[in-house]
Amino acid sequence: MTTLNETHDPTIRSWVESANVQGTDFPIQNLPFGIFRRRGTSESFRAGVAIGDQILDIGAAQAAGAFSRQAARAAAACSAPLLNAFMALGPAAWSALRLALSQALRHGSPQADKLRSCLVAAAQAELGMPAHIGDYTDFYTSIHHATSVGKLFRPDNPLLPNYKWVPIGYHGRSSSIGISGQAVQRPLGQTVPASADGPPAFGASKRLDYELEMGIFVGTGNELGKRIPIAEAEAHVFGLCLFNDWTARDIQAWEYQPLGPFLSKNFASTISPWIVTMEALAPYRVGWTRGDGDPQPLPYLDTSLLREAGAIDIQLEVLLETTKMRAAGTAPQRVSQTSFRHSYWTIAQLIAHHTVNGCNLQPGDLLGSGTQSGPAPDEAGSLLELSSGGKTAITLPGGEQRTFLEDGDAVVFRGWCEKPGCARIGFGEVGGRVTPAVDDY
Amino acid sequence: MTTLNETHDPTIRSWVESANVQGTDFPIQNLPFGIFRRRGTSESFRAGVAIGDQILDIGAAQAAGAFSRQAARAAAACSAPLLNAFMALGPAAWSALRLALSQALRHGSPQADKLRSCLVAAAQAELGMPAHIGDYTDFYTSIHHATSVGKLFRPDNPLLPNYKWVPIGYHGRSSSIGISGQAVQRPLGQTVPASADGPPAFGASKRLDYELEMGIFVGTGNELGKRIPIAEAEAHVFGLCLFNDWTARDIQAWEYQPLGPFLSKNFASTISPWIVTMEALAPYRVGWTRGDGDPQPLPYLDTSLLREAGAIDIQLEVLLETTKMRAAGTAPQRVSQTSFRHSYWTIAQLIAHHTVNGCNLQPGDLLGSGTQSGPAPDEAGSLLELSSGGKTAITLPGGEQRTFLEDGDAVVFRGWCEKPGCARIGFGEVGGRVTPAVDDY
Repeated sequence: MTTLNETHDPTIRSWVESANVQGTDFPIQNLPFGIFRRRGTSESFRAGVAIGDQILDIGAAQAAGAFSRQAARAAAACSAPLLNAFMALGPAAWSALRLALSQALRHGSPQADKLRSCLVAAAQAELGMPAHIGDYTDFYTSIHHATSVGKLFRPDNPLLPNYKWVPIGYHGRSSSIGISGQAVQRPLGQTVPASADGPPAFGASKRLDYELEMGIFVGTGNELGKRIPIAEAEAHVFGLCLFNDWTARDIQAWEYQPLGPFLSKNFASTISPWIVTMEALAPYRVGWTRGDGDPQPLPYLDTSLLREAGAIDIQLEVLLETTKMRAAGTAPQRVSQTSFRHSYWTIAQLIAHHTVNGCNLQPGDLLGSGTQSGPAPDEAGSLLELSSGGKTAITLPGGEQRTFLEDGDAVVFRGWCEKPGCARIGFGEVGGRVTPAVDDY
Repeated sequence: MTTLNETHDPTIRSWVESANVQGTDFPIQNLPFGIFRRRGTSESFRAGVAIGDQILDIGAAQAAGAFSRQAARAAAACSAPLLNAFMALGPAAWSALRLALSQALRHGSPQADKLRSCLVAAAQAELGMPAHIGDYTDFYTSIHHATSVGKLFRPDNPLLPNYKWVPIGYHGRSSSIGISGQAVQRPLGQTVPASADGPPAFGASKRLDYELEMGIFVGTGNELGKRIPIAEAEAHVFGLCLFNDWTARDIQAWEYQPLGPFLSKNFASTISPWIVTMEALAPYRVGWTRGDGDPQPLPYLDTSLLREAGAIDIQLEVLLETTKMRAAGTAPQRVSQTSFRHSYWTIAQLIAHHTVNGCNLQPGDLLGSGTQSGPAPDEAGSLLELSSGGKTAITLPGGEQRTFLEDGDAVVFRGWCEKPGCARIGFGEVGGRVTPAVDDY
């Protein structure tokens, strides 16, 4: 786990005044990395760091002489339109650039004058995919989600015997992962037959859902055949984002046996644009424990570090906005909130498990945490759970009801860490809007 | 389906004499594409076409002025060390370059003299990955395999109700796909607990298996949200190779529910180096039909073209060679043979299904066909089936027995098309050898 250093000091203030405003997601203690260009231009996408309502162009700052030694070498790896090369450098380089950015953006920094011209207002920016995602793996780390969904799919057998031993994961689709703002076309597909011997139904999904997840970007990878021991696992993680793993529940129910979800998931997944580093999250680490009666993990998934600070207390919320609400100027409505701290498996365990068989991870690979649902029913991270499998609609402002998503609905996730004596570390948001199915048959 | 043209004429002979030898996999009617460099050098990998026991360097041939017009433009896309850009050009470009190669390599071609220096002996070449595989999807197209394996995993419910309606598929791991010759380290992992309430076992897999598959390389892709209709599906396929989807059966049995295989598969998969184009396979197209009592496919998976020539008669065989056989100079032993024609789903159906929800395919994406097992027990494409789930060992020359793979075992798949009046179209082979587990706990 990353220890605290001077970049975490909550008393530091920035010469970028918007970074000092109470409630900003991007104070100087955060410094998340992303890819941007000025909106409406054909400029190349390039690396930046969010600071208040501005983005610092890392390449421009480098050219202005803002960095020296290790930080300069790290900044040079940010010259590509994707962060993969920077991710591959490892934690010492990430930390060196983060420290240099913290110093350069501090109130009183002698570099302030030359860096002002390296800022682009976030409102004027178009954000791009932060990395080329070679492989995307989705996990299933919330025992509350696994149990609730298990009850719907397998009433007699909700939580399978492997759940408390295996951090269940499966491979997902990289090509259809998009950035916040993605338009998500309602998918067509086969669904469960109306009668046992009849043909399946075919058409637009009627049970389109979101899944509230964290996205975990791999930094340094491992060679094929060389596992990553759990004590070293977090050093391979570049940072986290918010992640919406859109799911068509009716397609999933028909296709998922015996080899898992496929077309029910791979039509779209959406990430938030800013990657918050593991170092920035250090003040919000919390202990991880197993519940009474739960087995302790196998040795390759266990380390005393987990018990000290294996989990992260990231507050998460889901908001819905319907077409009618948008027209009426009604604010998006929160439908649930939870915390990533409830995850049954930690990030280090996911990395150690993924590589225990020698599977190679690569810089920019994305792991999804799986839907994050807390222990209470209103902490559920999907409509499937909030509506009890479509049986109980939720009511929105203006009286609209939802069991699953309708065309025009926008889904927004927000995430942040906050507690007394520490700077707020925010993720911004990930949003996407459902567009109608295109059935051209 | 591709129709026959002059490149298929079995009477054409090449000035590369080894291409005219009876039984070669690579006569002038084949012309499969791959990536190579001279072994033992630090040359860049580059595109080539196999001809007899030689490889024609496409870039060198282009520089020598072998191609004109559309073929020259297609050859220019082969200048990268991977075939993705060429794959993205589409069937007209693939066909134009194939025709130009056929003409240039023909006996009596005026280009023979200048092309001799563009040949590299295959025995002197190192073959590389033919493409960057963005996403890899594995299907499950053999109903014989699905039924046999289903009996072992779910005796009461071998073939699930969705099988005859849905071309079942799931996403696999791209990063661990290697080229023929791959050393496959026996994976460690969790396996089923000895007692119902006990902890899972942990250690090296005891049930390591191969899976005999065809690999299908996507050529031109589709935009997210735009499906590929079945009548156009094959035009998106660049070609086929042999594919070994190594599987640890004991890890699979414990982890695969509810989200499918993960660590049981993603430690290694191996492809053969030469991609045989769909055009080269045209003479071996055969009709595809459903069995008596089987439902006809849903409209998005159906076209009259399937019934005319939806399947391909590719002969497949599996050979094993143990350490002892290798030491004794005993030839690898064939343990099964079958044909890709038995596949329950066609390649066009896989493409149409994969994109029906709008999922985007990209040039270089790989689809695995799933294990190809024929209707007879000795046509099974895995040891799991040949050994009836590990209960009945097969016997090899010298008296050795196998239920699953042991360290040092080499697995070789071969594939070819052959019939009177047509040139043999071969795939070469894909081989890999099992190396011992590394347990450094």
